[in-house]
Amino acid sequence: MKISTRASATSIVALTLCTALVLPGVSIAASPAPTNLSTNAGATRHDPAGDASSSVAEAIKAADAKNVILLIGDGMGDSEITVARNYEYGAAGELPGIDALPLTGQYTTYSLYREGDTKGKPDYVPDSAATGSAWATGTKTYDNAVSVDIDQVPQPTILEIAKANGLKTGNVTTSEIQDATPAVLVAHVDARSCYGPDSPTCGNDALTEGGLGSISEQLIGTRPDVTLGGGSTSFEQTAKAGPWEGQTLFDQAAERGYQVIGDSAGLASVTTASQQEPVLGLFTPGNFPTRYTATAATVGGADLPPVTCQPNPERLASELSLGSLTTNAISLLDNDEGFFLQVEGASIDKRDHAADACGQIGETVDFDEAVQAALAFAEKDENTLVLVTADHAHSSQIVDSTPPTSLSTALATADGTIMKVSYGTAEAGESQQHTGSQLRIAGYGPGAANIVGLTDQTDTFFTMANALKLDRNTAAFSDNARLGVDRRIEPGATVSITAEQFNGDRQVTGAVTPGETTIDAADVVDGAATLSFTAPTEPGKYTVTVTGAQSGTQVTAKFMVK
Amino acid sequence: MKISTRASATSIVALTLCTALVLPGVSIAASPAPTNLSTNAGATRHDPAGDASSSVAEAIKAADAKNVILLIGDGMGDSEITVARNYEYGAAGELPGIDALPLTGQYTTYSLYREGDTKGKPDYVPDSAATGSAWATGTKTYDNAVSVDIDQVPQPTILEIAKANGLKTGNVTTSEIQDATPAVLVAHVDARSCYGPDSPTCGNDALTEGGLGSISEQLIGTRPDVTLGGGSTSFEQTAKAGPWEGQTLFDQAAERGYQVIGDSAGLASVTTASQQEPVLGLFTPGNFPTRYTATAATVGGADLPPVTCQPNPERLASELSLGSLTTNAISLLDNDEGFFLQVEGASIDKRDHAADACGQIGETVDFDEAVQAALAFAEKDENTLVLVTADHAHSSQIVDSTPPTSLSTALATADGTIMKVSYGTAEAGESQQHTGSQLRIAGYGPGAANIVGLTDQTDTFFTMANALKLDRNTAAFSDNARLGVDRRIEPGATVSITAEQFNGDRQVTGAVTPGETTIDAADVVDGAATLSFTAPTEPGKYTVTVTGAQSGTQVTAKFMVK
Repeated sequence: MKISTRASATSIVALTLCTALVLPGVSIAASPAPTNLSTNAGATRHDPAGDASSSVAEAIKAADAKNVILLIGDGMGDSEITVARNYEYGAAGELPGIDALPLTGQYTTYSLYREGDTKGKPDYVPDSAATGSAWATGTKTYDNAVSVDIDQVPQPTILEIAKANGLKTGNVTTSEIQDATPAVLVAHVDARSCYGPDSPTCGNDALTEGGLGSISEQLIGTRPDVTLGGGSTSFEQTAKAGPWEGQTLFDQAAERGYQVIGDSAGLASVTTASQQEPVLGLFTPGNFPTRYTATAATVGGADLPPVTCQPNPERLASELSLGSLTTNAISLLDNDEGFFLQVEGASIDKRDHAADACGQIGETVDFDEAVQAALAFAEKDENTLVLVTADHAHSSQIVDSTPPTSLSTALATADGTIMKVSYGTAEAGESQQHTGSQLRIAGYGPGAANIVGLTDQTDTFFTMANALKLDRNTAAFSDNARLGVDRRIEPGATVSITAEQFNGDRQVTGAVTPGETTIDAADVVDGAATLSFTAPTEPGKYTVTVTGAQSGTQVTAKFMVK
Repeated sequence: MKISTRASATSIVALTLCTALVLPGVSIAASPAPTNLSTNAGATRHDPAGDASSSVAEAIKAADAKNVILLIGDGMGDSEITVARNYEYGAAGELPGIDALPLTGQYTTYSLYREGDTKGKPDYVPDSAATGSAWATGTKTYDNAVSVDIDQVPQPTILEIAKANGLKTGNVTTSEIQDATPAVLVAHVDARSCYGPDSPTCGNDALTEGGLGSISEQLIGTRPDVTLGGGSTSFEQTAKAGPWEGQTLFDQAAERGYQVIGDSAGLASVTTASQQEPVLGLFTPGNFPTRYTATAATVGGADLPPVTCQPNPERLASELSLGSLTTNAISLLDNDEGFFLQVEGASIDKRDHAADACGQIGETVDFDEAVQAALAFAEKDENTLVLVTADHAHSSQIVDSTPPTSLSTALATADGTIMKVSYGTAEAGESQQHTGSQLRIAGYGPGAANIVGLTDQTDTFFTMANALKLDRNTAAFSDNARLGVDRRIEPGATVSITAEQFNGDRQVTGAVTPGETTIDAADVVDGAATLSFTAPTEPGKYTVTVTGAQSGTQVTAKFMVK
């Protein structure tokens, strides 16, 4: 990992800078830019007398990892990375997390059109739903799609597959947990705005329509071991159909075994996360407040006095920063079987949409802390693949002079100079657009070399799945499913049956024949589920059938009512 | 190099795509995008079942190269690369040169302020002079500076150093050869617009002021073995001072041994390039015409019917395309001692400034052909470092909807869909701005791993110099300099003396003492120079001193006039 080993020959200042650079994962305070930038070799980041070939070669480890941590800076194109670095650490400085990854590449992010003459053809500027679905499932799809293909067929996600393979799983974000980037791991819907049972856009995905349910409801069923973020509002909504009809999603989650928390004290009280007791921590009704207060870009704004970003008084407690949540999640997930964790810094995108340079910068710095936390763990663990990338490029550009029609802001940077940031893809008050440029992807650990060169966003799914040696045929994990039922049951009795070895499923459903008795879906926890029903009152021979909701595996058992 | 070895499992279409992808350096015709992009793994660029770790590791070779080819796409940020790929090959396609480089990274491009309170501090949006000087010399400098530091002190360039180390050198561009990117290799001036003796901006750099001369004049003296590009206008100007005062620069070049050519027939007639007979081919008065005719972006332009780029009837003959010139230059430079060659695709930047999407795309495609030519040679040679990067990011962005105030154009792409390109940093008729984002740098061959991760543009100088094992202390190459003078000379005779072993110099000057006799500068060719002067008429003992113009080495010899 130590790729920066600048020789002391250039100067003491350079050496001091480098002492910081060789400690990725360790937070360093923003420091003034080195003062010798104008000398020969004064601005180099590597040892000007060295050859990095062997250190890069040493960073390459075969794709056999125990854990994967995927960190997504939403909308964090190379421009957004540079904006944040320039502001916070100076142009010659280093984002201690993002910039420390030893292996680097670019990937393409386009989505596909879903209908008409262009169905299946590239759409050059994607949204976060299509892009998230790409790395979550390995399938290119259309804007708005959450882990379904262009024909709306659900695609298994890396989190679902990792879970079926016996790994712990986690999902951490600074946005509403229903937002596209976290949603793609745990849900399959046609419209990304199908947040909760009250969402008007759920269409056929709604439970009332026989669908899989809203993103929030599917999240509960997918049952990651750790879920941390915002978006409690949707969980206060009430299920409209299914076994938990009439209950809030929070109550449903608690009933299904979740440790539901909502503040830093709650988080501090959690000591374990498991399939028996997964953790659901939603700390804000919507998205997290950003690190810095918002700045408003205006036409001509970069000609105004330069702005220094101000700490946001509404920011959550430091225990709930993205870096802290990442550290927490890792410590809850770390186990002998390995884990998959996704961490998103969501508001780089959101503040870029709002032409808010300080908001965007602060979120990038927060995200960088999460990267540092992931690298700190991975360096100790030595068996963790860390990937850092973005979902799509965005609007912000660093410009030399104030653009005449675009929105812009001047910032007073760590260098003591002025950086002008421009947003030119929408008018004031409108949402700045995503852009279609290829993006940086960077990696550390086993399998990270797969991101070097040019890949597509869908390659990332396979990079992660291959590194974890995941068996993607998860339906077969339920091949040995079996059922335990008493042979003789009293008429009308309450019957509890045990389904076991349904390792390829997250839920099972059941039915009793002859007759009309259906059995409420039950969660499969560590392969097993307990289902309850009321025995027929008519004596006779009956068959109970239990079906894996994901695998389709059916197991039957016979019993007699007498 | 074969990093794309997609398994045949996914589909026949995918396999066909891949057969093309594994042949980097070989031009493939634009082909429609594969039709299976929407299937699982249908859009991946790597083998979804494979692990690229070993192929990436195999691409890493210790920094010990015989040759270096540096290819600069001027203004070719990740956005410009994506625009060209989408248009010409489709979003899932591959630029057969640029995208084939196996090792990739990002670098920072900022320049420095030259005066006032911010002297030596970062200027976030650089120009092509500062950025070119960075990789040419390893020294960060100010916008407008051509290989001088912020105090206007000349910095030795990679071409000058390579030449002193006995390598052949070349400089190829589609712009005027005096433009910043080619100029940084061969000249040292305070103002990049100091093209020729008639340029009003040369100031103290003019020969009339005792300076090193205009860029064109310095180019002649630097004497690369191969110089190919545009910019003949400045060479038709007349020297205002020095040994060639009153002569055009073309005449001067011819007199100093150059093979001066100006068309494809001339180029075809050249069979060798050497210090005895370097090649100076200037094929246009200014910049080369681009591959495609210009498109004009307008406010709302992306709502107009999409444009198909049209071949430019003014484009030079195919023998003078950047790819052909690159192939030619390589074949003239390839020799046992190795070579350094820079190739620039200049008009990506120039057409981006003009908000001309087709111009920009065509130049990127032309540049890609040059990269293919370089890779084709490097793959055979197995001892050549190829680096592909840009000098700075630029304005063009791929957007989803037509921006309200920015200039934009809609293009009909190889995918059969529409790409909207936006330019939002200047108004119509004004020059779109460079932007300050970090950039892609990619490499192949010995030492290429030094560009992986995050580097600065100045690191590139050391990556190349170290790969070539260049001794940068070139002044010492003249330590064994010696002089041959007849001991006895007739009064007033024309004397010819031979300076030898001036290997660290490109010119030598001389003087005779006592008296006022100065000797015109002479070119050092393969270490040797012949100087002429008129002997004093007064009999007596005299000393002739010859001084290396670059090393400062002085050698004296005594003679007698009688």
